[in-house]
Amino acid sequence: MVSQCPYSSLCLPATDLPRIVVIGAGFAGINLIKKLHNSPVQLVLLDKNNFHQFQPLLYQVAIAGLEPDSIVTPIRKLFQGYRNLIYRLAEVNRVDPDSRRVFTDIGWVQYDYLVIATGSVTNYFGLEDVARNSVGLKDIRDALDIRSWVLQNLEAAAITCDQNEKEALTNFVIVGGGPAGVELAGALSEFRRYLLRKDYPEIAEEWMKVYLVEATDRLLGTMPEAASDHAFRTLSQLEVEIRLNTTVQGYTGSEVLLADNQTLLAKTLIWTAGVKGAAPEGLAPESGTKGRRLKVDPFNQVEGCRHVFTIGDIAAMTDEEWPQGHPMVAQVAIQQGKLLAENLLHLIRHGTFKTAFHYRDKGSMATIGKRNAVAKIGGSVWKGKLAWVLWSTVHLFSITGFKNKLMVGINWIIRYLNYEKANRLIIREFKPQQTKVEQT
Amino acid sequence: MVSQCPYSSLCLPATDLPRIVVIGAGFAGINLIKKLHNSPVQLVLLDKNNFHQFQPLLYQVAIAGLEPDSIVTPIRKLFQGYRNLIYRLAEVNRVDPDSRRVFTDIGWVQYDYLVIATGSVTNYFGLEDVARNSVGLKDIRDALDIRSWVLQNLEAAAITCDQNEKEALTNFVIVGGGPAGVELAGALSEFRRYLLRKDYPEIAEEWMKVYLVEATDRLLGTMPEAASDHAFRTLSQLEVEIRLNTTVQGYTGSEVLLADNQTLLAKTLIWTAGVKGAAPEGLAPESGTKGRRLKVDPFNQVEGCRHVFTIGDIAAMTDEEWPQGHPMVAQVAIQQGKLLAENLLHLIRHGTFKTAFHYRDKGSMATIGKRNAVAKIGGSVWKGKLAWVLWSTVHLFSITGFKNKLMVGINWIIRYLNYEKANRLIIREFKPQQTKVEQT
Repeated sequence: MVSQCPYSSLCLPATDLPRIVVIGAGFAGINLIKKLHNSPVQLVLLDKNNFHQFQPLLYQVAIAGLEPDSIVTPIRKLFQGYRNLIYRLAEVNRVDPDSRRVFTDIGWVQYDYLVIATGSVTNYFGLEDVARNSVGLKDIRDALDIRSWVLQNLEAAAITCDQNEKEALTNFVIVGGGPAGVELAGALSEFRRYLLRKDYPEIAEEWMKVYLVEATDRLLGTMPEAASDHAFRTLSQLEVEIRLNTTVQGYTGSEVLLADNQTLLAKTLIWTAGVKGAAPEGLAPESGTKGRRLKVDPFNQVEGCRHVFTIGDIAAMTDEEWPQGHPMVAQVAIQQGKLLAENLLHLIRHGTFKTAFHYRDKGSMATIGKRNAVAKIGGSVWKGKLAWVLWSTVHLFSITGFKNKLMVGINWIIRYLNYEKANRLIIREFKPQQTKVEQT
Repeated sequence: MVSQCPYSSLCLPATDLPRIVVIGAGFAGINLIKKLHNSPVQLVLLDKNNFHQFQPLLYQVAIAGLEPDSIVTPIRKLFQGYRNLIYRLAEVNRVDPDSRRVFTDIGWVQYDYLVIATGSVTNYFGLEDVARNSVGLKDIRDALDIRSWVLQNLEAAAITCDQNEKEALTNFVIVGGGPAGVELAGALSEFRRYLLRKDYPEIAEEWMKVYLVEATDRLLGTMPEAASDHAFRTLSQLEVEIRLNTTVQGYTGSEVLLADNQTLLAKTLIWTAGVKGAAPEGLAPESGTKGRRLKVDPFNQVEGCRHVFTIGDIAAMTDEEWPQGHPMVAQVAIQQGKLLAENLLHLIRHGTFKTAFHYRDKGSMATIGKRNAVAKIGGSVWKGKLAWVLWSTVHLFSITGFKNKLMVGINWIIRYLNYEKANRLIIREFKPQQTKVEQT
């Protein structure tokens, strides 16, 4: 038994090495840790889940037939053999920069350097009834909830004779025309086109409707207009009812209230219209910015908090090119994680940071239904099948672990050959009222 | 829109065909339905889940790295194109043979012929504290609960400094030395041997203990003694602590009380020591037998209930060869399902049954850890690697659906090549106190 560390209640081994506490095993956190493998530091990773999730494919778990196990990787497996890493399954309650302590549901730990990589959560912008009655798409549990919810409502639609009820049960409203909303809408309308008749002879195809509601005047607002137009046309062909320039004001659980006093009957509402930083309590309020991100300098150090860093979605780093901060996407998180690892080592060895962060935008992409996607690479926009092949390749190579790559790859090949989506299972029964009401 | 059937509130289409209501989509129910495809009957299938589960591999979902999706098949997918079948996601509350009605949580339906194929549930033999604090292995949710529970307790063990607490968290007690208990004990001790050190450097291998508690004097009591001996030896080599002739009297949630006043500290107890028929309410009590099965004649008709049939685990059919009824295994369910389909058609067409049921015992088998199994085929007992190859082949061919076969097959090949079990994910947090206390 190693002697217990007096600077923690988490059963950490005592050490003379500087301790870096990392909160969150998303893209930012795991890339930082990989870079610090075998470095002379003690790494303590805290995450409320025991797995890393590959968020870009959550929508496929929700609708399009991927197993949840295929897109998540156990943290302990990911870092097998990392002798300088200690992982703890813990939910962080509070950070105290004065005593350099992190307080969790299982105890506290003192840090020399703290890296907050807690990512973002769904932002309902204060719409409490929406938060209560809808589900977001930020977590593997959200994806499984959506899967169950859609199927439960179709089962209920099969046995109701009340026309209003049936309409509400077969209308699916997706709010937010970003990549998540577009991909979900595409997958759901393909479910309707290729599976509904086979699986639910009780429900005519024209009954089921997929709505995509977007507040601005175009889909995929962060991509060039050519990409937006292609997404609009493709989804229209798939009979998605797209409502641009439309905001959602409320949701009763069966009726969506739109800004222009119109309503939509729908018992399913999926909210992908916004995210906000998931900052832990305890950091000085002036560190906060719009969207609850924490303002950092070019080395990802939180303003006014020495040796406290944030990376990924939660970090708001502004410069001339990005006056609102970087986009909250995987690429930023990965690049910041890797660079901060180098900067931390340099700081420990030489007392200074090495390199300021500069985001290299490698492009962005989104699938729209099957065999169709849009991608922005550098200045050019790719559309259609070629973009879809690119999307598939990039995502397959990005998934953690050989077995997961293999499983996802095989699933995609089977799906490419036919339109069958096999994973129509209600294992976790979904009850919308269980969704937590947001605190802000 | 078809006209609604006046003999049901479940939105069934009206028909002149005789209606067969089937409760349960286990091995018995689905084999009956497959045989009745395109027959001139209206089939109504009720199940509280929207999927069929392949129970023999539940233990691999719990411990050994199979995805839940790979061993369950959506019912609507299974019966795509069955024009004479209507499926309803419904939990049956009560059966009323007088009015020939089945009452469910979503409405009622009147039958001409009723087939009860509800299988069995875990039998705690009245031990309420065990029921409350342990988990069985009869359902995919049980398997996911066990997976989460084992991992949660190992995470908790990694941070406790209290030696008693640590012992309780790293002791895993499996009650019941039948195939389920033996397979689970084997998988769990292989987890210890090949993964614990890699994943949990905080927990020494000698700390984690797997106990297998069996009330009789041997494991695999339904198989020949040579098989029992082989199982005992193999599990002993895997360092499973086997306690024969030992019954469990109670369980506080952290202490297992054994019959001889001995106790075992353990925060995990998995109960595979018994099952009982899951009979719906409403059948006359005299129909019941030991283990809550319903007594049937050689045509699976419930005694005293005309046109009510039970098949599979729930059916107690006794004859000279099987004075206690048939074993509650998949083979009996499959054979009874198929035969009853023929007998029902004959009854409808000619007013009489065709063939009395006679069980053809094709043998039984169980895996014991990796690359090792026992099998009884006819009079002979197979042991070791050859039995394991046989076990794997038989089970792979029995799993429903091409994609599931492929996914399970690939998982097994990966697992054969290394000992990695990838699915160590806590997605459903498990809380033992949530386990329902049994009604009887």
